[in-house]
Amino acid sequence: MNGHGEEQIVFEIGVVVPKSNVTEEKETCDCVETLVAEFRKVGLIVQRVSGLSDEFLKLAAPVEILGRSAAKMQMKKPTNIGMDLQFEWGQVDAFVKQPDGSLFSWCERFQCYHHLIYGIVNKGDSDIVLKYDGVKFCWEVGESLLTRLESEGIVKLVFPLHDETKRKKLMRSWALNWWDLTNQPIDEIYSYYGTKVAIYFAFLGRYTSWMLFPAAFAFILQLVDFGSLQLLMLPVFFVFIILWSVFFFQFWKRKNSALLARWQINYTVGAGQGHKDLGMEWKTHQSPVDLIKGVGMDKAKEKQLYQKHEWFGYLMRFRNDAIIMLSIVCLQLPFELAYAHLYEVLGSDFIKFGLTAIYIFIIQYFTKIGGKISVKLIKYETNENTEYKADSLVYKVFGLYFMQTYIGIFYHALLHRNFRTLRKVLIQRLIISEVLDNLLENSLPYLKYSYKKYKAIRMTFYPLFVLSRNKKKREKGSSSAEKINFGSRVEKEYMKAAYSASIGEELEDGLFDDFLELALQFGMIMMFACAFPLAFVFATVNNIMEIRTDALKLLTMLKRPVPRASTTIGAWSNIFQFLIVMSICTNSALLVWLYDSEGKWKIEPGLAGILIMEHVLLLIKFGFSHFVPEEPAWVRANRMKNTSQAQDMCSRQLLRSISGGEKAFEELKHD
Amino acid sequence: MNGHGEEQIVFEIGVVVPKSNVTEEKETCDCVETLVAEFRKVGLIVQRVSGLSDEFLKLAAPVEILGRSAAKMQMKKPTNIGMDLQFEWGQVDAFVKQPDGSLFSWCERFQCYHHLIYGIVNKGDSDIVLKYDGVKFCWEVGESLLTRLESEGIVKLVFPLHDETKRKKLMRSWALNWWDLTNQPIDEIYSYYGTKVAIYFAFLGRYTSWMLFPAAFAFILQLVDFGSLQLLMLPVFFVFIILWSVFFFQFWKRKNSALLARWQINYTVGAGQGHKDLGMEWKTHQSPVDLIKGVGMDKAKEKQLYQKHEWFGYLMRFRNDAIIMLSIVCLQLPFELAYAHLYEVLGSDFIKFGLTAIYIFIIQYFTKIGGKISVKLIKYETNENTEYKADSLVYKVFGLYFMQTYIGIFYHALLHRNFRTLRKVLIQRLIISEVLDNLLENSLPYLKYSYKKYKAIRMTFYPLFVLSRNKKKREKGSSSAEKINFGSRVEKEYMKAAYSASIGEELEDGLFDDFLELALQFGMIMMFACAFPLAFVFATVNNIMEIRTDALKLLTMLKRPVPRASTTIGAWSNIFQFLIVMSICTNSALLVWLYDSEGKWKIEPGLAGILIMEHVLLLIKFGFSHFVPEEPAWVRANRMKNTSQAQDMCSRQLLRSISGGEKAFEELKHD
Repeated sequence: MNGHGEEQIVFEIGVVVPKSNVTEEKETCDCVETLVAEFRKVGLIVQRVSGLSDEFLKLAAPVEILGRSAAKMQMKKPTNIGMDLQFEWGQVDAFVKQPDGSLFSWCERFQCYHHLIYGIVNKGDSDIVLKYDGVKFCWEVGESLLTRLESEGIVKLVFPLHDETKRKKLMRSWALNWWDLTNQPIDEIYSYYGTKVAIYFAFLGRYTSWMLFPAAFAFILQLVDFGSLQLLMLPVFFVFIILWSVFFFQFWKRKNSALLARWQINYTVGAGQGHKDLGMEWKTHQSPVDLIKGVGMDKAKEKQLYQKHEWFGYLMRFRNDAIIMLSIVCLQLPFELAYAHLYEVLGSDFIKFGLTAIYIFIIQYFTKIGGKISVKLIKYETNENTEYKADSLVYKVFGLYFMQTYIGIFYHALLHRNFRTLRKVLIQRLIISEVLDNLLENSLPYLKYSYKKYKAIRMTFYPLFVLSRNKKKREKGSSSAEKINFGSRVEKEYMKAAYSASIGEELEDGLFDDFLELALQFGMIMMFACAFPLAFVFATVNNIMEIRTDALKLLTMLKRPVPRASTTIGAWSNIFQFLIVMSICTNSALLVWLYDSEGKWKIEPGLAGILIMEHVLLLIKFGFSHFVPEEPAWVRANRMKNTSQAQDMCSRQLLRSISGGEKAFEELKHD
Repeated sequence: MNGHGEEQIVFEIGVVVPKSNVTEEKETCDCVETLVAEFRKVGLIVQRVSGLSDEFLKLAAPVEILGRSAAKMQMKKPTNIGMDLQFEWGQVDAFVKQPDGSLFSWCERFQCYHHLIYGIVNKGDSDIVLKYDGVKFCWEVGESLLTRLESEGIVKLVFPLHDETKRKKLMRSWALNWWDLTNQPIDEIYSYYGTKVAIYFAFLGRYTSWMLFPAAFAFILQLVDFGSLQLLMLPVFFVFIILWSVFFFQFWKRKNSALLARWQINYTVGAGQGHKDLGMEWKTHQSPVDLIKGVGMDKAKEKQLYQKHEWFGYLMRFRNDAIIMLSIVCLQLPFELAYAHLYEVLGSDFIKFGLTAIYIFIIQYFTKIGGKISVKLIKYETNENTEYKADSLVYKVFGLYFMQTYIGIFYHALLHRNFRTLRKVLIQRLIISEVLDNLLENSLPYLKYSYKKYKAIRMTFYPLFVLSRNKKKREKGSSSAEKINFGSRVEKEYMKAAYSASIGEELEDGLFDDFLELALQFGMIMMFACAFPLAFVFATVNNIMEIRTDALKLLTMLKRPVPRASTTIGAWSNIFQFLIVMSICTNSALLVWLYDSEGKWKIEPGLAGILIMEHVLLLIKFGFSHFVPEEPAWVRANRMKNTSQAQDMCSRQLLRSISGGEKAFEELKHD
């Protein structure tokens, strides 16, 4: 136990291995022992904790070990002069410190750990024979030990650990700080959870505080009787919320930039959805030219190849989108309509309840299958990095959820053309979805955790348990099984649920569900704003609760999530924009119906057809620029390759001059 | 005459000074002599050409002189590794050559010349007394000689000279190459005229060749009788042209990027309208922090200041736009409507003709005044560089022209609700505007040139002329005046008109008029596409002519234009986008009317009101992101400052390593 005495050591990674059944007869080639020895060899501090049925290796690393690993990974980090340069341990002063004073952000630290522990390979000349529980297997030359052990099923999980001091601090300053309403300690969240989670909470907070305005407007609209102006107030409200949403999104983007600047993250603005361009990601992305390497190629041919690759990529993506859209329209739409119609037709409340239960059961599978198909389809796309892949998935799956959530309401709206019924449906949906969601979201992880805990205790102590029962029966005295305390903190964390998405864990984490909830809520309140303005008040109250419950969930219910590199809300931004455009159309339609119901005007099918066409065209007009980027891929590839080559070649010289000129530079800056 | 013997010397700059009346008694301190001596001192090759009434100094510079000047200006140039670095003459091999093999592009050369000739200052300790035509004046210490002479009126003009060999080559391969239709030697145009002009012609060529598709469609629509499908064909055509235009603009942007990549121009994609960020421009732009320099300031305060400055800028721009819009709506709109109405009401063709003449006379002044007001207003805006200023001007002035061109047509369309009349008006406008424009555009410069030439000859030779007439009278023999040949080539060029905009020469050159013509044509054919599809055929024919006549105009009628740094079509891109959105709305309205005229449907004012509101909202939704950029100014300023500092500090080291590692780099690239 290397660093047991020092109090500051923070163990950040946990590795789960099974508890050796035969602890007594220690053999030198036991694979867990080898793993621990190798961990120590690369400089990691290892603490072994024995749990109920598993053993936990808690890993920590001194900053120097992380730094050397980062240098080996050729990680790019912002320097004091504002440029991202390749990290070098010797020139550590040239690099920008995090707001909390540490050298690496949590995301960078995690990458370093990952590189360190998966980078342990057999460097010898011959294969090493490892033994586990009597079974022997080979650790081949050049193979990663951890990958091998994972495939053998010996290493059950590698997961990031909570940092108890920071977690408790966040509990106090964030999750339990109810009276701050929408204020949150975003910087601390960033340094504990990384960019993506911090951006989510910053967005949620911003969104909720901005929503106070339309909520107040809606409240006034509800309470005050405007007399003859009453008919005029709904269009005014419509215009107000559209302007509100447009302003909000523009200002959110600015806020996002400002946050990234505060966290010293350089990102390329022009790069489409604005993900951080990690120098590493680009290298791992296979460019079409690399694929056909070795052939002597001139520039024109290279360009042609890039173009072919680019267009093939668009074609694949188009095909995938078409498949998803068609299956939504041909399979999901009739199903949803059938449900809505049946629900309407059926008389008895009891049958209605049964129908809804069956419906909910089916759509659970529906969305899961949809998610799986989407993930499979995306594998054929040539997205540049995982965040782009995740975005592509989000678009596809959101289509599914969009249909599921709104088609019923559209059906009701179309069928009744009556504001009162529509309002009733909306209230039902809003309250049910929000209350149910919040309950499920928070109770499910806890239930899962309890069950796992129960199972683990039962499994481990079953003989003892039976024994004690037998004993009890016999002696009716002191019970030993009840006294056994549930293992260590790391074991508890291992039992907790992961922060994973409901649609599959490969590309998205739990943020998918949280963003989805927000987007569906936004669509609900915006698209039917004229029918039910008070929805804004509901949503505001719900979101204020959401901030704290989500915080609690992340801090207490779940494992610490794996940090992600994304620096914006990604695909969700475009989805919200889409919902704004949709809400312009739906609210216009609602207004037409509203005044139509008073029998003043008439609407004819032909006119409606033209209007629909016009709107589809408008959508295409504004959507197309998102579909094909403005810069051809080969131009971009050229630029990026060149820049990264330049930086690779010159970063050492640059660094030295920065370090040397540090003082001069500081003086220059304060001038 | 320094380089008189060498044939390759290309004189690129002309300086016009008056011909000394007393050439015999040469004095050492004559200012023209001083100027020539100073030019030679900085390394320029000077050729003095005596014209009819003026003397011309033709300047050329060896590449080394230009290079040293570029290094002094701290010009940024793309290097072989793809990064823009500060130019240094010693490391010349590290920098990318132009496609035609020269080191500097025409735009860069012009900047160097400008820096060289305006950089001649009195470096002595005391003022130097210069003499011209007997009048003495002072050349103060540290003052630029050329600026002084310009303010004294001695240097009449500094202008770029045509390069005869290249000009003749372009005449053959471009202007007179009618059978190439839309193909043009864009690379040669780029190296002769610089980016902005080349981009215009590339756009014109692209636009024309793409327009062949809708033209063909329109032609078929005109010729073939679709029977019962006839009514359906117009909506199909409408959808087709909208898709066509959306695709065209997206692909144009890609083409633009590709062109810039071919010309080795690095530009920042995210920087709003995509102008090239010259390192120099940024330095000259006064940031608000520089304005209040010397005060010890912390980061938060600096940020606040930037934000204040940014929002003040938006406010000013908003105010200016509001002023322009209000004056267009309150002054121009009634005027245009009055004209359209009067024209409609008046019976006699003669009075109509008179009215039109008066109208044309008035709108000439109207647009000129509008342009001047816009230029004045823009001075209060804080645009970052001249290209942004030019864009701001273009938006304002286009509003004026938009009203002027289309309001009459809208009036007719609304009044008659009749496709036949509308079509007649459109044909009139299209033919008249295009024929008249082309005629004026090409004949006016020639007429101006002829007049100037005539005046110059008359002025100079008047005494001689009178003498010869007297002689003639007396001798009735050989005439000498007729034989006097009109001076040198440089004098002819001086007589030619400049490539200047009709709205003022300060911010825009002749490209403004050319783009305006294109935009107005685009609006005309797109917005009323359903009323008159054949307009596409007219436009195609006109544009094919336009390419060659514009080329001829630039090559033969005008002075060589001053090259500009802009790398995109700038504000025009947004204007074309706006016209597409407008045409979606107008065509929808036309279709409604078309089917309405057949008495099937009815449209009520309330419904129309809602639709209008909806469209205004859609416009705001998509327009707002153009109004306020996504990145706050202070974030951007920080980023740019940092990057430029980094490059300033390290460029020398980078350069050395590039030059040294050139071979290794080449090997690496071909690997």
